[in-house]
Amino acid sequence: MNLELRINPSRLSQRLDALGRLGATPEGGVSRLALSDADKLGRDQVVVWMKEIGLDVRVDQVGNLLGFRPGETDEAPVLFGSHVDSVRDGGRYDGAYGVLAALEVMQTLQEARVGTRRPLAMVAFTNEEGARYAPDMQGSLAFTGDLSVEEALAVTGFDGSHFGTELKRIGYTGDFSCASVRPHAYVELHIEQGPLLEKEGVRIGAVEAITGISWQEVTLRGAANHAGTTPMDLRHDAGFVAARVISYLRDLAAALGPAQRATCGSIAFKPDVINVVPGEVKMTVDLRNTDEAVLRQAGERLGAFIERAAKEEGVTAVARQLVYVPPAQCDPGVVTVIEAAAAELGLSCRRMPSGAGHDAQILARHFPAAMIFIPSRGGVSHSPAEHSSPENLAAGADVLLRTVVGLAK
Amino acid sequence: MNLELRINPSRLSQRLDALGRLGATPEGGVSRLALSDADKLGRDQVVVWMKEIGLDVRVDQVGNLLGFRPGETDEAPVLFGSHVDSVRDGGRYDGAYGVLAALEVMQTLQEARVGTRRPLAMVAFTNEEGARYAPDMQGSLAFTGDLSVEEALAVTGFDGSHFGTELKRIGYTGDFSCASVRPHAYVELHIEQGPLLEKEGVRIGAVEAITGISWQEVTLRGAANHAGTTPMDLRHDAGFVAARVISYLRDLAAALGPAQRATCGSIAFKPDVINVVPGEVKMTVDLRNTDEAVLRQAGERLGAFIERAAKEEGVTAVARQLVYVPPAQCDPGVVTVIEAAAAELGLSCRRMPSGAGHDAQILARHFPAAMIFIPSRGGVSHSPAEHSSPENLAAGADVLLRTVVGLAK
Repeated sequence: MNLELRINPSRLSQRLDALGRLGATPEGGVSRLALSDADKLGRDQVVVWMKEIGLDVRVDQVGNLLGFRPGETDEAPVLFGSHVDSVRDGGRYDGAYGVLAALEVMQTLQEARVGTRRPLAMVAFTNEEGARYAPDMQGSLAFTGDLSVEEALAVTGFDGSHFGTELKRIGYTGDFSCASVRPHAYVELHIEQGPLLEKEGVRIGAVEAITGISWQEVTLRGAANHAGTTPMDLRHDAGFVAARVISYLRDLAAALGPAQRATCGSIAFKPDVINVVPGEVKMTVDLRNTDEAVLRQAGERLGAFIERAAKEEGVTAVARQLVYVPPAQCDPGVVTVIEAAAAELGLSCRRMPSGAGHDAQILARHFPAAMIFIPSRGGVSHSPAEHSSPENLAAGADVLLRTVVGLAK
Repeated sequence: MNLELRINPSRLSQRLDALGRLGATPEGGVSRLALSDADKLGRDQVVVWMKEIGLDVRVDQVGNLLGFRPGETDEAPVLFGSHVDSVRDGGRYDGAYGVLAALEVMQTLQEARVGTRRPLAMVAFTNEEGARYAPDMQGSLAFTGDLSVEEALAVTGFDGSHFGTELKRIGYTGDFSCASVRPHAYVELHIEQGPLLEKEGVRIGAVEAITGISWQEVTLRGAANHAGTTPMDLRHDAGFVAARVISYLRDLAAALGPAQRATCGSIAFKPDVINVVPGEVKMTVDLRNTDEAVLRQAGERLGAFIERAAKEEGVTAVARQLVYVPPAQCDPGVVTVIEAAAAELGLSCRRMPSGAGHDAQILARHFPAAMIFIPSRGGVSHSPAEHSSPENLAAGADVLLRTVVGLAK
């Protein structure tokens, strides 16, 4: 391809602005929960743009939006994209950037009349975030067949709504079969959502693995007692055990190396009164690692610690597994193509894991897949403060352009 | 006095049952929030009983109920009683027992025609619990003059109600001056609300000091970040700091001796989401000690620890003092009379502190005062499960009888 070819940065920015106005929140972020009215507006806009540049638009049975560009052959297409749904009060870049950069790549190739041997397909997957319907990554799970279309359509949301009904209501129950596209490779461009690239001053991340996630809810039951009259040594303080567990998470992560994450994000005391020793605590634990053996080891060590700490305080502990998504390894060939693209563009690049879940994680189980990351300001995401600079947004899209063309050769 | 004189245990139990039916909850406890309809019913019943046995009933300006029995002289009376208000979903004994045992002591003396040199006065103080209006111990604070009548009447409740208006509504705005009784001594009989007497198999506690209480709200502010993408060493995890503080409370109490209590009863994470590092935590700390110097030292050490732990995590900490009630020392003379009474009755007795706050704490600032405790089953109180055996209820009332007569000699 023409080594001078670049995407149009101002057009990309304008489209990010335009999509960011659909479902915009007063704080400068977006709320485009899956299958909401705002999600419909976002989808409608993406479809208009895809059609404007001549893509063959298809909607599959779970609402995944696909835009095809023919290749010189009918071989398996190179697929690239992300999602347009968001969390509640999320940011303007998570997902939307990957979809609009894919559109920009398509338009750049159209305008430059650059052909590819393989067909190209861009995609916006349904309900990546899981903020309204569980599981998250629902569209990609149906796309790969890990979730049947029937199961996907039958899901009931946290708000009591029915996935199939809502999908129909917003007009995105397509007739294109989820199983009809078996891509040659999948590439997803995304903001990092973490601080590493910014901290190290690196422009591009070539994602070589996507973290596995274990979510547990731990319930600790002791005895609610008067905070003044109950001697310290006669307490069965569920809050004290919870505190020991939270402190232990830091030690656990340190013991298992820098790829290990361990977080308590949510906690509730009962009765939650200033002068009562907490009799019951519900807390969550989020464990992540890109190495499945280590992730399982983290879970086992944590379980043993909770049991010991609870026993020492005369408290019972019950852990319930809420989610377990194994880690996914990216395709080394695709990662190499990403690295080569960054090098051609003179952009610094490092291999790195993704600490967040993405559709690429689901695709990677079945097809060669990898991700391209660009720096997130302050590492912030799922927040109106989510931001990446126009220079980095353009650089990531240029890397995507070259990666896609490289894979479609 | 007649060494064989005893209160009537079945009459005491019947009155406890009868009062327990006013504001009864389905779980077997009571909700008689201060100045509520249920509190009015409880007061009305106590007034009826006081009048039935010939006491001279007076209601003071903040609704404290007083029942006088003349002595052989007009010297300062011996005052004894407690309160009839309860916490929401509280138990049947906290407060009510002290008032009904006082009534039983009066009736026993009436029936036996036992005279005393000093007059006797029983009392049911208004709003001891503070569950509807702050401060707690409002009636005794007004009685001693630590709170002016005007201030007391002007209080707005947690439910938005106005103390003075509610007091009038239930018909308990009296014309008796709060300042008109300066007792010779005050004695309060109460359930222990802790596990010590039961655990040691001791029948009577002679309370020699009442704990001081420090309540703080600590706000920790770090940074909410993605639980997957944020490396452990780049976190500013307010929840981790909170956990270190909760763990430290145990160490602090151990360092300061068995009289020290340190409790985190309430905590809230923000945003409180499973996959987000908590950016903000609000937590409470309840510190208690019967030694004011040690209590202040506990507060200082805790403050220093919070500052250090917060700094190490890159989190800010702000502590707000919500309540500070200094400890009260009971009168050694009154404590000795209680011990002698228990000994005469052949009841085991130990000196002990009170870990809970009581009206006696306020009275002790101005008058010789002490408390009598009886065992609480399982140490439980402020709960429908609050229970003391009929034998212990009777034993405590007999100790009160002898103590009052001893003090009124």
